[in-house]
This record gives sequence, structure tokens and C-alpha cells, in this order.
Amino acid sequence: MFVIGERINGMFTDISQAIAAKDKKPVQAMAEKQLSAGADALDLNVGTKVPKAERAQVMQWLVEATREVTAKPLAIDTPSLEIMRLAVAAASAKGSAIINSTTGQQDKLEAFMKLAKEFNAGIIGLAIDEKGVAATAEAKVEIGMRTIAAAMEAGVSTENVYLDPITLPINCNQAAPGIMLETIRQFKLLSDPAPHVVIGLSNLSQGASERGLINQIFLVMAIVAGLDASIHDPLDEELTDAMITAELLLNKTIYSDSYLKAYRQK
Amino acid sequence: MFVIGERINGMFTDISQAIAAKDKKPVQAMAEKQLSAGADALDLNVGTKVPKAERAQVMQWLVEATREVTAKPLAIDTPSLEIMRLAVAAASAKGSAIINSTTGQQDKLEAFMKLAKEFNAGIIGLAIDEKGVAATAEAKVEIGMRTIAAAMEAGVSTENVYLDPITLPINCNQAAPGIMLETIRQFKLLSDPAPHVVIGLSNLSQGASERGLINQIFLVMAIVAGLDASIHDPLDEELTDAMITAELLLNKTIYSDSYLKAYRQK
Repeated sequence: MFVIGERINGMFTDISQAIAAKDKKPVQAMAEKQLSAGADALDLNVGTKVPKAERAQVMQWLVEATREVTAKPLAIDTPSLEIMRLAVAAASAKGSAIINSTTGQQDKLEAFMKLAKEFNAGIIGLAIDEKGVAATAEAKVEIGMRTIAAAMEAGVSTENVYLDPITLPINCNQAAPGIMLETIRQFKLLSDPAPHVVIGLSNLSQGASERGLINQIFLVMAIVAGLDASIHDPLDEELTDAMITAELLLNKTIYSDSYLKAYRQK
Repeated sequence: MFVIGERINGMFTDISQAIAAKDKKPVQAMAEKQLSAGADALDLNVGTKVPKAERAQVMQWLVEATREVTAKPLAIDTPSLEIMRLAVAAASAKGSAIINSTTGQQDKLEAFMKLAKEFNAGIIGLAIDEKGVAATAEAKVEIGMRTIAAAMEAGVSTENVYLDPITLPINCNQAAPGIMLETIRQFKLLSDPAPHVVIGLSNLSQGASERGLINQIFLVMAIVAGLDASIHDPLDEELTDAMITAELLLNKTIYSDSYLKAYRQK
């Protein structure tokens, strides 16, 4: 599993305060903590408290602060093409970037895929288009197909594409997890080489009282269905234990009595 | 999920001591504890410490002690046809019995299916035959087909049949969980109505240091694959939470913020 750490996000108080104080230390400490907990990449999101006019500058500052401590891939989490271009360029100066994200409207796909091609970046394609979040597996797969087609058109390898089925919280739609699993299975069949499939894990449990448990169990189910990337909190130890054990049981890692420790020491 | 509580088994010290002292109280208390934790049936096993000559009598005593506190199905856990007949008859006097178990040799299948028909009992068919434990999904399914055919021949409804893929511990064969999942998927397709699929969950984690976690994660995976019955410890709260959450995410139970409590109060 390719874990994209979600914790450098202005929606968390520690990061929001660091942004306000222009203090790089908490951002860098959070980068290092997530990486040593097993994160393969780090998501960067300025949050919603930063005024629109300052978001480009804050995102650039987040990228530079993080790049001082790691060359791992950085997922630039913004809907703005302009901010994306600045941040992807900055991140790509040392290491690679992941565009997080594009939606499935034709004009968005073309613009963001062009950027992905230019910087040889990964790109996350959401199952959202002009009609909103696709509700059924069929509609999600249709947007996935469009995303793959746009990648091919732009010369982006499908191995750089991460399809995200997007979910509603389970307390809004109880069929959501089943639809997600079906979509994940179908996404993996859309191209050869297959695209990656990614989820923003915590969306499913938003507003639920047993968030941790729901995240754990759904992650296991999604891994069986073919999920190979996830945006979540790598500092959640129970979640990480569940993920490691799922990969062990699917024979993707080698058994030893201390397999949990072995993962964390890698 | 149909949960068969595994705790009335002479391999556990509390039950072994109760058997030796002919003290019904601990057996009955364990029956009630498992049922209030959600068990749908109770497995009864005299263990290996009881001398062979006394096993029939001890099993009968276990059935009678348990029947004083519940009319729920009792799974009679013995390889002996003679003990099975006595205990199934005793259990069926008030409520139903599950034959746990038959192996897949033709003569065994015929004898145990005849007994299942006579008492309208459930019957667990293991993926074991004269060649030992079937190692591949194909070989397991072949025994499953033979078991279903024997049930039909004897007039036992396939809804009363529980197929058990049988597993080796993960520390002996790391491919075991994947083979189990594949077998579970195929078992469900063997007849219409489909047979139940059951596992003795704890076998997989035998000898592993992270037994609880491995049991939890595998149970979730097996439920997605089609498992609908499990022999395990219903007093293991984390395991039960994982199971309840898996069923919730597959839309088999209704969401409420207090879904964990709701299960336990049912």
C-alpha cells in the first residue's frame, strides 16, 4: 500500500497555527513523524482558514518547508490549477509531486493532465464531474474511463494515474461502502498497466461515532478489492496495524512473528 | 453472521476443571455469557484430557448441562459417530443440533448425513478426506461438491450444510488465507440454495504472536468473500466489533451511531 499522510492540512489546529505563525517547525516535525510511521508520500493542504488571495503563497511555503526535510512525493491538495502549477513546480525541484486532484470535466482533465505530463507527476482523478459526485458504480467507472482516456491523450502513463471513487459518509448512504468496493474492483480493470486506486479514507466515517473502527474495517475490505493507495493518518496505529495485517494475509508481505515491527522499521 | 461460540471446550482450563469436578455451574455460566455476547449457537467439545471410554458420557453431560439454560442450537464437536448420535439425540430433545463435523470420505459422508436427516440437524463438512487436509482451492471445492452431493442423496437440505474450507496456520503456509478466501467464494456457488460456509477462525492464527489481530482482519476478509458462520470466541470484544462493523459496511445491518451497542442488545 502506498500511504499518503493526510496530517499536513490546515484543518488540523497544529498545522493551522503553524501556518498563521509562519513557523516551519511543526510542519516539518509532522512530515517526519508521518514518514517514520510508514507514509510513502505526504499530502499538503492549506485548509479553509487561509484567505483565498494568500493560498498560493501559503501552499508554496508548505512545499518548501516540507522539502527541507524530505524528497518523498508530495501530494498537492488544491482545486486551483494556478496554485497547483506553482506547487507542483516547487515540489518537483527535489523529488516528485502528485496532483491532488482533478475532477472529470473534459476541460479540467485536459488542463491537469497537461500539467502531470509536464512535470511527470502522479495525478488523482476524482469520480466527480459537472453533475457532481457520481452516485453509482457505473457512473464512477464512466468518469474513471474518461480520466484514463485523458491521461493517454496527454501522454501520461496510466501508472501515474490514481483513480478515487469518492464516497459519501456512511451515515448519509449505507450503500456507499458496497458501491466503493465494486468501483475499486472495476477501476483496476480499466487499463493495462492498471491505474492505481486511492481513497480519502476518512470521508466514509465523517460524522459517525465509531470513526476509527469504520476506517480500519473499510480499509481492509478495500485492500481486498484492489485498493493500492490511501490518504489517511499514518499515525493512527490501529489503522496501520489493520493495513499491515491485511497485506500479510493477502501474501503481499512475508510473515514473521514480529511483522508489525518489521513494517515500522523498514 | 451465525456465530458458534467455541468456549465450552475441554481444552480451556475452566471447562476442563468443571468436567473433572462434574460441576455444571461453570459450563452453564459460559453458555449464558456467550449467548449474551451474541452467540447464535454453542459448540460443545469434551477436549482431549477425558479418557476415550468416558467421552460419550461427558459429552452427554455437557449437552444436558447446556440444555438446562438454553434451547439454542448446539454444535456437537466430535469425530465419533457413536458419540455424535447420542449427543445429537439429547440436544434435539429441546432445540436443534449441528453435527460438527464430517470429513469427506464417502462412507463418513453417508453415515453422518443419515444422522443429519434423522434429526433434521445442521452438519459441518470439512475439506478433509482420506488424503488429509485438501491443500488447494480446487481440492477443497471438490470435497465440498462431494459433501453437497451426499446431502442431496440423503435428503438433507443444502441450507443445513455448513462447508468448512479448513486452514493451516499462517506461520506454516502464508498462502493459506488467500486459498481460504478463494474457496469460500466458490463454496457459495455450489448449490441453490447455497450452503453455509463456516470456519474455525482461530486455526489460522495458531502459534502466531498477533493472534487477535490476525483473527479480526481475516474474519472481515472472509465475510466479504461470503462467509456466513464462524466458530470463535464471542467474548473477544475486538473481534466482535470488527465482525459487526464488517456487516454494517456490507449493508447487512442498519446504521446508527450506536450500532455496536444495538448488536449486543438484540
